[in-house]
Amino acid sequence: MRKVTVFITLKQGVLDPQGNQVQESLQSLGYNVVQDVRIGKYIELLVEDGPDLEVRIQEMCDKLLVNPVMEDYYYEVKEDVHS
Amino acid sequence: MRKVTVFITLKQGVLDPQGNQVQESLQSLGYNVVQDVRIGKYIELLVEDGPDLEVRIQEMCDKLLVNPVMEDYYYEVKEDVHS
Repeated sequence: MRKVTVFITLKQGVLDPQGNQVQESLQSLGYNVVQDVRIGKYIELLVEDGPDLEVRIQEMCDKLLVNPVMEDYYYEVKEDVHS
Repeated sequence: MRKVTVFITLKQGVLDPQGNQVQESLQSLGYNVVQDVRIGKYIELLVEDGPDLEVRIQEMCDKLLVNPVMEDYYYEVKEDVHS
């Protein structure tokens, strides 16, 4: 069993209203040091190991987890987890 | 200017209906190799550098970005970014 972490972010140039809202809230709390905020998704998967693990991760991202029009992603395959 | 990345996940034991839904969807697409799915947030901040940068990051997380009852977080301060 492998722990896989997928990081999904909005593509450059895609508007991020949620990020803008968080930035305004931080600045209203006095954190004017914050110049930009981008919000993304962070998905942890527990996946059975196997020779085609990487192919399956990319397929799952391309088919369901990631919106290819607006989002970029990268993933990390972490340590072997004994369920 | 520093690029700060905050990773926010649900605490162990907290139900994750969104994660369960994604897991069911993946399995309905034939990916029965997926045993567990946990969904979190991934926030990228562009923050002015300074001696109290780490303190400010923790304050922003504790005051706004993270729900301490249900969520855990960690953060990484990445390279110096020239805006």
